Amino acid sequence: MTLSPSSTGITVVGLDGDDTLWHSEVYFDRTQRRYVEIVSRYVDDEVDVMAALAEVEHRNLGRYGYGIKGFVLSMIEAAIDLTGGAISAHEIDELMAAGRTMLEHPVDLLDGVEPAISELADAGYRLVLVTKGDLNHQERKILASGLSDRFERLEIVAEKDPATYRRVVASMGVDAGEFCMVGNSVRSDVLPVLEIGGRAVHVPYEITWSLEHADHDGTVPTLATLAELPGWLAGTS
Amino acid sequence: MTLSPSSTGITVVGLDGDDTLWHSEVYFDRTQRRYVEIVSRYVDDEVDVMAALAEVEHRNLGRYGYGIKGFVLSMIEAAIDLTGGAISAHEIDELMAAGRTMLEHPVDLLDGVEPAISELADAGYRLVLVTKGDLNHQERKILASGLSDRFERLEIVAEKDPATYRRVVASMGVDAGEFCMVGNSVRSDVLPVLEIGGRAVHVPYEITWSLEHADHDGTVPTLATLAELPGWLAGTS
Repeated sequence: MTLSPSSTGITVVGLDGDDTLWHSEVYFDRTQRRYVEIVSRYVDDEVDVMAALAEVEHRNLGRYGYGIKGFVLSMIEAAIDLTGGAISAHEIDELMAAGRTMLEHPVDLLDGVEPAISELADAGYRLVLVTKGDLNHQERKILASGLSDRFERLEIVAEKDPATYRRVVASMGVDAGEFCMVGNSVRSDVLPVLEIGGRAVHVPYEITWSLEHADHDGTVPTLATLAELPGWLAGTS
Repeated sequence: MTLSPSSTGITVVGLDGDDTLWHSEVYFDRTQRRYVEIVSRYVDDEVDVMAALAEVEHRNLGRYGYGIKGFVLSMIEAAIDLTGGAISAHEIDELMAAGRTMLEHPVDLLDGVEPAISELADAGYRLVLVTKGDLNHQERKILASGLSDRFERLEIVAEKDPATYRRVVASMGVDAGEFCMVGNSVRSDVLPVLEIGGRAVHVPYEITWSLEHADHDGTVPTLATLAELPGWLAGTS
């Protein structure tokens, strides 16, 4: 079957950025290990310093939203809490420096992303990038990815909920039934899209942030890598 | 003269958010005073701790962009630098708590904003809000302002440069000559709009962030408050 929008019913493909097009969570992971190392100097072995961080991140999500800056602020807050204020300013400085390094890390595309995106664009699919996180950082990553010309729209959003996806689908001028979202997060890229009547494809990443954990009912198409997406679309009608 | 888009040549009015529609810099100012108080415990009187903060903010602007989270991170970084790491974790925690308070402050509209915006919308002007800062925080402020229904589009942008304004004007489907931007920052709301052939009105706020300082040549219309905007538009043709 030839790959073309007319044969699939899907004309618009939404793509997530972090951990779908390019690596992201690995950099959080690296910084978190530094946090564990520093905080562990002060607390007993049995204290779950990662769980404490997840709790602070969860508490701050409404205030800070997504992205590295809020993550760093939550990490410092958790470190001060856990150490009862004993952590030194130099160690806090080190956590902030790790955050700045994360913000400057070159964009590292996942394997097979570039040819898959090119194939979809060349086949006539209209592509929209739907990503959350720090506005400034996401814009810089999109530019640095070299993929921005392939996308008709770039949507950096504060939350990936049904209302956001309704707005994105409307901005592309299609019905939800013509929209298929592709991403690594069941919670953000799959469930809210199914809720508005769209389609979704799950492409899991090696690590999932604890606040993104969610399950689907097993009926959602799941691909090993984005390289399989053109083939999956070609086989869908 | 009746207020209507047809008599002015201007059909789309862009409005800045922070310090144009609602108070913002006063909250930064309050937090900065706390920062000065804390850091001054450690440094000599002749050290300009505000200038040091402005320098760190400027250095981090490319990484952090605009908004409270980046401001708090820069404030902590400046405080650690200036005190040679002697500042305590508890004092750093206090600066972070001040940042969280800023993020939760109720939206406080400037005098005369609500009736002016209603008058423009009722007269048929198409309104677009163009604001920069943290995505999540700006979205929450727009919702809390009670003004969002008056705006046809909400544009939260990473930078207010000519490219951004070209995109905003295009998204409204008009020529730059039909667009008039209104805001408190000459650097962000006036100069880049004039550069793309649009019109701009300056409504100064009582305080201007040091990184927003800029001058215009004196020919830019300057209003004391937003309440004067409908009258100004009515008199323009």
